[in-house]
Amino acid sequence: MGSDSDWPVMEAAVTALEELGVACEVDVVSAHRMPQEMLRYGASAEERGLRVLVAGAGGAAHLPGMLAAVTSLPVVGVPVPLAHLDGLDSLLSIVQMPAGVPVATVSVGGARNAGLLAARILGAGEGPEAERLRAATGRLREDLRETAHAKGAALRARRGQAEG
Amino acid sequence: MGSDSDWPVMEAAVTALEELGVACEVDVVSAHRMPQEMLRYGASAEERGLRVLVAGAGGAAHLPGMLAAVTSLPVVGVPVPLAHLDGLDSLLSIVQMPAGVPVATVSVGGARNAGLLAARILGAGEGPEAERLRAATGRLREDLRETAHAKGAALRARRGQAEG
Amino acid sequence: MGSDSDWPVMEAAVTALEELGVACEVDVVSAHRMPQEMLRYGASAEERGLRVLVAGAGGAAHLPGMLAAVTSLPVVGVPVPLAHLDGLDSLLSIVQMPAGVPVATVSVGGARNAGLLAARILGAGEGPEAERLRAATGRLREDLRETAHAKGAALRARRGQAEG
Amino acid sequence: MGSDSDWPVMEAAVTALEELGVACEVDVVSAHRMPQEMLRYGASAEERGLRVLVAGAGGAAHLPGMLAAVTSLPVVGVPVPLAHLDGLDSLLSIVQMPAGVPVATVSVGGARNAGLLAARILGAGEGPEAERLRAATGRLREDLRETAHAKGAALRARRGQAEG
Amino acid sequence: MGSDSDWPVMEAAVTALEELGVACEVDVVSAHRMPQEMLRYGASAEERGLRVLVAGAGGAAHLPGMLAAVTSLPVVGVPVPLAHLDGLDSLLSIVQMPAGVPVATVSVGGARNAGLLAARILGAGEGPEAERLRAATGRLREDLRETAHAKGAALRARRGQAEG
Amino acid sequence: MGSDSDWPVMEAAVTALEELGVACEVDVVSAHRMPQEMLRYGASAEERGLRVLVAGAGGAAHLPGMLAAVTSLPVVGVPVPLAHLDGLDSLLSIVQMPAGVPVATVSVGGARNAGLLAARILGAGEGPEAERLRAATGRLREDLRETAHAKGAALRARRGQAEG
Amino acid sequence: MGSDSDWPVMEAAVTALEELGVACEVDVVSAHRMPQEMLRYGASAEERGLRVLVAGAGGAAHLPGMLAAVTSLPVVGVPVPLAHLDGLDSLLSIVQMPAGVPVATVSVGGARNAGLLAARILGAGEGPEAERLRAATGRLREDLRETAHAKGAALRARRGQAEG
Amino acid sequence: MGSDSDWPVMEAAVTALEELGVACEVDVVSAHRMPQEMLRYGASAEERGLRVLVAGAGGAAHLPGMLAAVTSLPVVGVPVPLAHLDGLDSLLSIVQMPAGVPVATVSVGGARNAGLLAARILGAGEGPEAERLRAATGRLREDLRETAHAKGAALRARRGQAEG
Repeated sequence: MGSDSDWPVMEAAVTALEELGVACEVDVVSAHRMPQEMLRYGASAEERGLRVLVAGAGGAAHLPGMLAAVTSLPVVGVPVPLAHLDGLDSLLSIVQMPAGVPVATVSVGGARNAGLLAARILGAGEGPEAERLRAATGRLREDLRETAHAKGAALRARRGQAEG
Repeated sequence: MGSDSDWPVMEAAVTALEELGVACEVDVVSAHRMPQEMLRYGASAEERGLRVLVAGAGGAAHLPGMLAAVTSLPVVGVPVPLAHLDGLDSLLSIVQMPAGVPVATVSVGGARNAGLLAARILGAGEGPEAERLRAATGRLREDLRETAHAKGAALRARRGQAEG
Repeated sequence: MGSDSDWPVMEAAVTALEELGVACEVDVVSAHRMPQEMLRYGASAEERGLRVLVAGAGGAAHLPGMLAAVTSLPVVGVPVPLAHLDGLDSLLSIVQMPAGVPVATVSVGGARNAGLLAARILGAGEGPEAERLRAATGRLREDLRETAHAKGAALRARRGQAEG
Repeated sequence: MGSDSDWPVMEAAVTALEELGVACEVDVVSAHRMPQEMLRYGASAEERGLRVLVAGAGGAAHLPGMLAAVTSLPVVGVPVPLAHLDGLDSLLSIVQMPAGVPVATVSVGGARNAGLLAARILGAGEGPEAERLRAATGRLREDLRETAHAKGAALRARRGQAEG
Repeated sequence: MGSDSDWPVMEAAVTALEELGVACEVDVVSAHRMPQEMLRYGASAEERGLRVLVAGAGGAAHLPGMLAAVTSLPVVGVPVPLAHLDGLDSLLSIVQMPAGVPVATVSVGGARNAGLLAARILGAGEGPEAERLRAATGRLREDLRETAHAKGAALRARRGQAEG
Repeated sequence: MGSDSDWPVMEAAVTALEELGVACEVDVVSAHRMPQEMLRYGASAEERGLRVLVAGAGGAAHLPGMLAAVTSLPVVGVPVPLAHLDGLDSLLSIVQMPAGVPVATVSVGGARNAGLLAARILGAGEGPEAERLRAATGRLREDLRETAHAKGAALRARRGQAEG
Repeated sequence: MGSDSDWPVMEAAVTALEELGVACEVDVVSAHRMPQEMLRYGASAEERGLRVLVAGAGGAAHLPGMLAAVTSLPVVGVPVPLAHLDGLDSLLSIVQMPAGVPVATVSVGGARNAGLLAARILGAGEGPEAERLRAATGRLREDLRETAHAKGAALRARRGQAEG
Repeated sequence: MGSDSDWPVMEAAVTALEELGVACEVDVVSAHRMPQEMLRYGASAEERGLRVLVAGAGGAAHLPGMLAAVTSLPVVGVPVPLAHLDGLDSLLSIVQMPAGVPVATVSVGGARNAGLLAARILGAGEGPEAERLRAATGRLREDLRETAHAKGAALRARRGQAEG
């Protein structure tokens, strides 16, 4: 992430990855405050064994796009909302990348989805770990279904209403 | 894609994938016009051997998110701009997904980047094909660099200006 | 509704329907968390005897449009505002439906109006129940008129001002 | 509609209704140019036998909301885009109605959907005509499905690709 | 105003008029809740001796434009911000009037300016009262100048800074 | 107006005033290109016998607000749309004036309404000229009504439809 | 600044300049409340020895542009956010200046950056003071780098994670 | 600039600088296509004798901000509008920089102003060249005044109207 002030938002990405048993490293790598280190971080990510980068930033949010410019790995971008403009600036700064350098953008503040998307990406490949992740994602979707179903049932019960 | 009227935009995704030697299938799968088939398409994608879905749609663009709801594969969403609102509706309808169901969104009309992102995703895994894709993405980034460099040189030459 | 977190907003739709003596069922039917059940819910609504569907959802709000895709009943959509973007994403995701699959959209957070619109829809048909609903809607409009009139009178009185 | 300049947009509503065998009358009833007639038109619509009103207007679009204020019938509003602001003003002026007076809003320029929504509304009631309309809406949804399917098949054929 | 909930915003218009010695009446006249009375109010305003109308409303704000449609008097519109969309809907619903029916729109929540504008309008005519109002507006502008000057002086003094 | 490039838009204000028999002067008075003359123009307008100022400008449109700051006359502002952002910048730069200095803002490109509003303002006062203008505005509203009515009749005739 | 209510935002510009050892004067100079003084302030700034102007204003923010119209010095504009519209109006009113009269605009509420930009501008020239400022700006960038690095290290330490 | 496709927009910056006798170099330096060269370009600019950087880019426009992150020189950013979203994305991506790294942003497509701002910046310093530039900027402002005046005179003449 570009600043540790993004951590309250970005922590949800780490939580999601940990729930799915995916190891990750967390760091502050600012495009504007440490540009050379940022490029080095991105350029060396592949050989350091990283497989996906998740980058969150706000305002004129350049971190995800700059990382995508120096790596061949997929980069997931999280628009972090700032005090003004409600994240619209962050969203457009991340998603509107020029042809050639894609960033996989999620919703404003959508760090949990960034973690889940990273897991789906790792699950898209071959081998047992990818298979495990596809299965884990499937279970997670199933959990969502069951929770939603239970909420509906609770609501119907509260209203004394029969099965929908 | 949700309609064959999206093809002029979405074709660039196919071209990008073909340039990188990635096989893909193209289809019209409309969330609103053939919802059951759409869900079946998404739900069966994994066992049919697909590894990434690229979905483009415009306006109240529900295709990418609905596919993401029924598969564990990563889904890349392309906001196709319609006659009004310049794609802002398409972008928000695709990117603002609720926690649990991520869509990897690219820029308005950014189908080429959707193809390139799909290739990066396939290159994030293990094995020789993933390695080949990472290398191909690296060459593509190198080509972009060289083209940009050549354009700069041509511009400087046209202006009789020395090396920048 | 797509989630029970929408209930504080959506409850006003139920209240409005109950005020007008229209029976309704309430349920959590999430487009993204339980897509198959959601389609089944929509597809069976007509034969289960429902006459109008009122669907609220936020962000990339796909529930109203997806229900409209599998039923011939009218679907009323309520854009539920989320923490960011103030409901603009919800509004555009619901209202900008492609030709062929309409959603009757009300204002951001406008659940009470969704209930009233459902009642007007049921009152548009033939028969005594429709007539009753048209009359009830008429009385409700009359109540609004009287309340507004009374508020004006109170304000004028407070200011010692004669009849406007 | 508020002006005959809206006719090129609004004609699609009439076409949709005629395709479904629903009789309709067309008129210019301007909220701003003939306010008294407009209110009379709305207030007498029910006793003149109309069952749904479809109103299109652009910019500060007051026609749908003002009609909804004087009738108990459902009113469908079509935001007609003007030369500037791309219909965003029309959309917000129509959809953001205060509690008590709902307008069933469709997409910017979405007149065809307004016609289809009116038909769904008429099909929500009791009796053979309502049943006929529900069935007709069902066939129309089926046609959409088949057309989309055929477009997909044509695209797959053009690319020499097997069934999706 | 369209509702007494607009009073906390609209009160500033009355205060401004009273500061300038302009008599005014205050009333709740809702376009959507009492449309006939609203038209009567507007249509009779001139013969009742009113010279300017100031109308505030929020969301799909139709009151200022509808009044302008039935009177030859100038109408000043105040966009009242609602809970969502920050008054952008109110602003566009009021300012984007079609050719022929102007509304003099002020800023979102700008009721004080609406009162001052009404006073300027009354001061644009002939006769001693108009002259008095032009002079009063001039004094008010002078007061603004002096207050701003004093604030600057206080700030400079606080910082131990010489005259700017 | 701020530039003669605004003339194609602003000419409609002059036409409207001439239709109503109101004399006016036209000039280029740029806030940014001739600020001192602009202030002098505004400050001397009242004693030169002007009664209303109509100011059009685009982008960061400062002319209407700056004139309002140096005169006690009412100022009508016309947001002229530029090549980008569709007049939204012009609108906000004109309408969002701080408390104390109102500008009577009309729609984006709404120069005809600016002229009509100026006439209404002149008609708000006492005396025969004001009366003449109120009557002229009334006739103009009547013309609008008749034209709209005729358009409706023509449309109904074209469709072989009886009186609405 | 245009009002002392802007001081809580604008103070950060002064702090930044003082950190860098740049003398500055602070004043309230309102475009709308004291237009003549404002022009005099701008027009005399150069001969009074000022080298850069930093101007903050909100809403229809005319101060930066009007100052730029009467001086040859660079003007830095700070969009101050008001209660509504989140500073979008302030931003567009400042940044969208017509060709010929530039304003160097910073982010919504970005007063600290305005101060830093002023220092960079003063550092762009010749002479020892400019050199000193370039060096000071360089150190400040270095401090940012170190702080960001330390934050990353602290975060990694908290997570028991090795060097990134 | 980030791409030679930006040249038709950016050329106006060069023209402005050449009119004012300021030497400049032109180059394509893409943040996303040649990130390392871009950083080198920015980091070496000061010692290569450049005094101001003018950077134009569109969409997720990262060039101006990234250059500002590696130099102590002032950076002027030009939001280049792309095919969609009318430059709003470019504007927000450039102007909304975090505290510490300012970019002097001009209007959407405002390259001429970027050149003029660069000249003002160079004119803010000490020495004869700075003095020359301040004088040249002053003459340019005077030319603008005269041109605007002449346009007004021509318009008044065309209308047979006396001096305004």
